[in-house]
Amino acid sequence: MDAAKPARRGPKPNAQTRQKLIEAGLKEIHANGFAATGIQKIVDDINVPKGSFYNYFDSKEAFGAEVCDRYSEQALARLTGFLADADKPPLRRLKAYFDDRAASFALRGFVQGCVLGNFSAETVDHSELIRQHVATHFRRWSGVIAACLAEAQRDGALAGDLPADTLADFILNSWEGALLRMRAERGAAPLEAFKQMVFDTLLHGRAH
Amino acid sequence: MDAAKPARRGPKPNAQTRQKLIEAGLKEIHANGFAATGIQKIVDDINVPKGSFYNYFDSKEAFGAEVCDRYSEQALARLTGFLADADKPPLRRLKAYFDDRAASFALRGFVQGCVLGNFSAETVDHSELIRQHVATHFRRWSGVIAACLAEAQRDGALAGDLPADTLADFILNSWEGALLRMRAERGAAPLEAFKQMVFDTLLHGRAH
Repeated sequence: MDAAKPARRGPKPNAQTRQKLIEAGLKEIHANGFAATGIQKIVDDINVPKGSFYNYFDSKEAFGAEVCDRYSEQALARLTGFLADADKPPLRRLKAYFDDRAASFALRGFVQGCVLGNFSAETVDHSELIRQHVATHFRRWSGVIAACLAEAQRDGALAGDLPADTLADFILNSWEGALLRMRAERGAAPLEAFKQMVFDTLLHGRAH
Repeated sequence: MDAAKPARRGPKPNAQTRQKLIEAGLKEIHANGFAATGIQKIVDDINVPKGSFYNYFDSKEAFGAEVCDRYSEQALARLTGFLADADKPPLRRLKAYFDDRAASFALRGFVQGCVLGNFSAETVDHSELIRQHVATHFRRWSGVIAACLAEAQRDGALAGDLPADTLADFILNSWEGALLRMRAERGAAPLEAFKQMVFDTLLHGRAH
């Protein structure tokens, strides 16, 4: 035994508590932001002592990076689910995804937006660790959208003169901006403008 | 004299100190976010006692709303300056504005983004006052861009089949999203993708 290692406080760490902490943290951080979220509130939410938090995570920053990962995993599963729907042509799958997201934000009252976007606004300038996690996840999301656009290009539903990856980045980033404006307006108009401009104009106008 | 009114602490309020507090607050909030910015740091920055802050502002929230106003005033002056350049056709003026912004972000190392975007991500869900200020300012900015696009439509440089105000909202919101991604990537690529897609594709493709 390494005598220099400080004794852990609280019960022995277990994977279930770790997952619960991440889920509770995701909920709090999504609702209130990273800076405004205290560890105390998260441990209270799942009824574990505060000291035990540091049995699981080295720092709030390391915890924030894992919250990003969890959020991205969930979001990517949903996006991939929509884009795998072989019954629809590729651009319709992508449209169906954004329709679903817009409906979900309407149900929630046009608040909270995207956790990766929120970390980008609030945290990435101050944490290289979180910045790298956010950048990696955005790239993954964009890559999935790019694959869908490339499929539309192969099908001839979309002209092939623009790189699918640049177009995907622009669409993803524009959606993130539409979410910011949705929250400022507390209404659907920015999401509708996004869909109109992207699907009815930018992509539609480029069909063969 | 109203005996029920509490005595003010500190020196008598003056307009210059008020302006200095707003300027210092804008700098801190832009750099660190609203939740992470303490009043103490702001009063320390301009060397006034903390108690005097509340001689000028009823609350941190009211102060935040005035910080939005100040930022928007400065940003709107810059945008209007570029769009009033009668030596260039309207779409070139708008492009020059975004080129200037992209160059400015490159100089600053691709951090901080837009104060209105940051408030949208962090604060508007929790403050109706700040939400209304942010929404009003975004609408003003969008209105100025819409007027420029409408001029391009009258000149025949841009097809008139899309409402200039929806197009302006989409462009502004997409820029806000590009700024989030710029910070996550800490690089210019998202701003370049924005300019390519908006000016070379969306607007260019719609010229008569």
